[in-house]
Amino acid sequence: MPITTRATELLGIEHPIVLAPMDDVAGGELAAAVSRAGGLGMIGGGYGDADWLSGQFDAADGVRVGCGFITWSLARQPALLDRALQRSPAAVMLSFGDPVPFAERIKASGALLLCQVQNREHAERALEAGADLLVAQGNEAGGHGYGSRTTLTLVPEIADLVARRGLDVAVLAAGGIADGRGMAAALTLGASGVLVGTRFYAAAEALSTPQARDRAVAAAGEDVRRTTVYDIVRGHPWPDGHTISVLGNDFVSRWHGAEPELHRNLESATADYRSAVDNRDYTVANVTVGQATGLVDSVLPAADIVTAMAEHAGTTLSVLAR
Amino acid sequence: MPITTRATELLGIEHPIVLAPMDDVAGGELAAAVSRAGGLGMIGGGYGDADWLSGQFDAADGVRVGCGFITWSLARQPALLDRALQRSPAAVMLSFGDPVPFAERIKASGALLLCQVQNREHAERALEAGADLLVAQGNEAGGHGYGSRTTLTLVPEIADLVARRGLDVAVLAAGGIADGRGMAAALTLGASGVLVGTRFYAAAEALSTPQARDRAVAAAGEDVRRTTVYDIVRGHPWPDGHTISVLGNDFVSRWHGAEPELHRNLESATADYRSAVDNRDYTVANVTVGQATGLVDSVLPAADIVTAMAEHAGTTLSVLAR
Repeated sequence: MPITTRATELLGIEHPIVLAPMDDVAGGELAAAVSRAGGLGMIGGGYGDADWLSGQFDAADGVRVGCGFITWSLARQPALLDRALQRSPAAVMLSFGDPVPFAERIKASGALLLCQVQNREHAERALEAGADLLVAQGNEAGGHGYGSRTTLTLVPEIADLVARRGLDVAVLAAGGIADGRGMAAALTLGASGVLVGTRFYAAAEALSTPQARDRAVAAAGEDVRRTTVYDIVRGHPWPDGHTISVLGNDFVSRWHGAEPELHRNLESATADYRSAVDNRDYTVANVTVGQATGLVDSVLPAADIVTAMAEHAGTTLSVLAR
Repeated sequence: MPITTRATELLGIEHPIVLAPMDDVAGGELAAAVSRAGGLGMIGGGYGDADWLSGQFDAADGVRVGCGFITWSLARQPALLDRALQRSPAAVMLSFGDPVPFAERIKASGALLLCQVQNREHAERALEAGADLLVAQGNEAGGHGYGSRTTLTLVPEIADLVARRGLDVAVLAAGGIADGRGMAAALTLGASGVLVGTRFYAAAEALSTPQARDRAVAAAGEDVRRTTVYDIVRGHPWPDGHTISVLGNDFVSRWHGAEPELHRNLESATADYRSAVDNRDYTVANVTVGQATGLVDSVLPAADIVTAMAEHAGTTLSVLAR
């Protein structure tokens, strides 16, 4: 029996499971697979390569999906949003930056507006923007994050804030959720669904490489590091307070905490990084996952992940309620 | 209907709620109140003031309670354990250090052994020690912690580790749990109970001051900082990797990130700190709570906290299971 929540109603889906729009990893094939299985797939718009994004919408093959953007990056090339909206996404998710300048166009297009938030202040701004859903992201999440709030405390605090305002805004929990237990926990905390990245990083349809997935499968939660070193070598300086969660490796050990030195050696470090990406050498290149990587022990088709997570969440709740 | 779990059976209690043995705050009166309400109260043994500990056992007034120690500190004055065991505690909890040297004496006394762990390696050592219960502590917890694992991902990872070993060891979740939602989440994650600090910091029977409690009640989760500055001025240098979660204030803003300068100004900063403690000035003195402080909006008797948390956890699970 599917778990029906305000999020499933708002999003028009069967299971309250949304794919995190992971940059470079959540492409059209993965997004479509998640949607076909009853969740909602979200293509990662990332830093805004318009042709890549367009190609990934093509790869979704007409299946109903959404897409996500890094808000501060989108602000530098706002035309990208128009190109995305031409594809009639079911939803657009904005993360890391002020959503207000984009909200009206997104909502006018008929897409639902999801705003990812990392604290109360972000949530208040997202509600001003008219967000249909808030994604409360704890810092156990993979990829970029802000600050130090964790999912377990942030979700109920944001749910209480929404309830006090009397708003019909659903909350999704993001960060640390990789199985039915985490999904059930999110629901008990006041979320009406989950946004899942790391578990889908190791999906068969993800654009992660097999070598990176193998590392994610082998890792424990404490193998993860939050750092800025990859943003430095990729030439994407993020606003203060943002870090990226990746697996620790030689590159992170070498440069994390030595950022001024990294800046002085930027050319060679960048060359090392780019070469490692080409060679799939993850002692240097990034495996962008969160702490939930310790709960991921296999590469599976996305549909199996969605189905197992939803079923396991349901049985977990049923068994405990007895 | 009470929630019965392996933890309630092992601990011989009605509700799977254990008081965190908060140094200076979890005294005998609070511990006894938690136990009387059906949980298990734990006196904070802290850095080991034998007379204080003895006085707090007296204050528990014969009610069945346990106590907790900072393991690396206990290793410097192991005789303290004998004094505690003379009081026949129901349980002894060891946190932050190697439990093996103390485990045998604790278990031989008839007390249950709880070991607090922050990652897989800690958990493996605690299992070697023969722990009866593992307390999986995420870094959203108040007070001291180690590393960056969060409760939402650590609990299922530790539960899986215990299950793979086929051991009859219960897991308690610690960090970020302040209400029935958090307790229900802990159970879905594979814990069979919770260890709660911050919510009881604002209990009427706690040894926290009314002024400190008021700050905890007013704070949001993101007002919390993890730092070592209070350990420095209190003259308790902790092993590397450990930090303490407190409310941010002028003192933390002044010295966090400027620790070498703090060491150079130790005498005056320590004098400021001690004076602030005496004057209950929490712009300087520490309010030792975790991120769950954002979910704490009132000072309540401990019995009300236990009862409401247990009931709310039960109804949360029942409602969701429908």
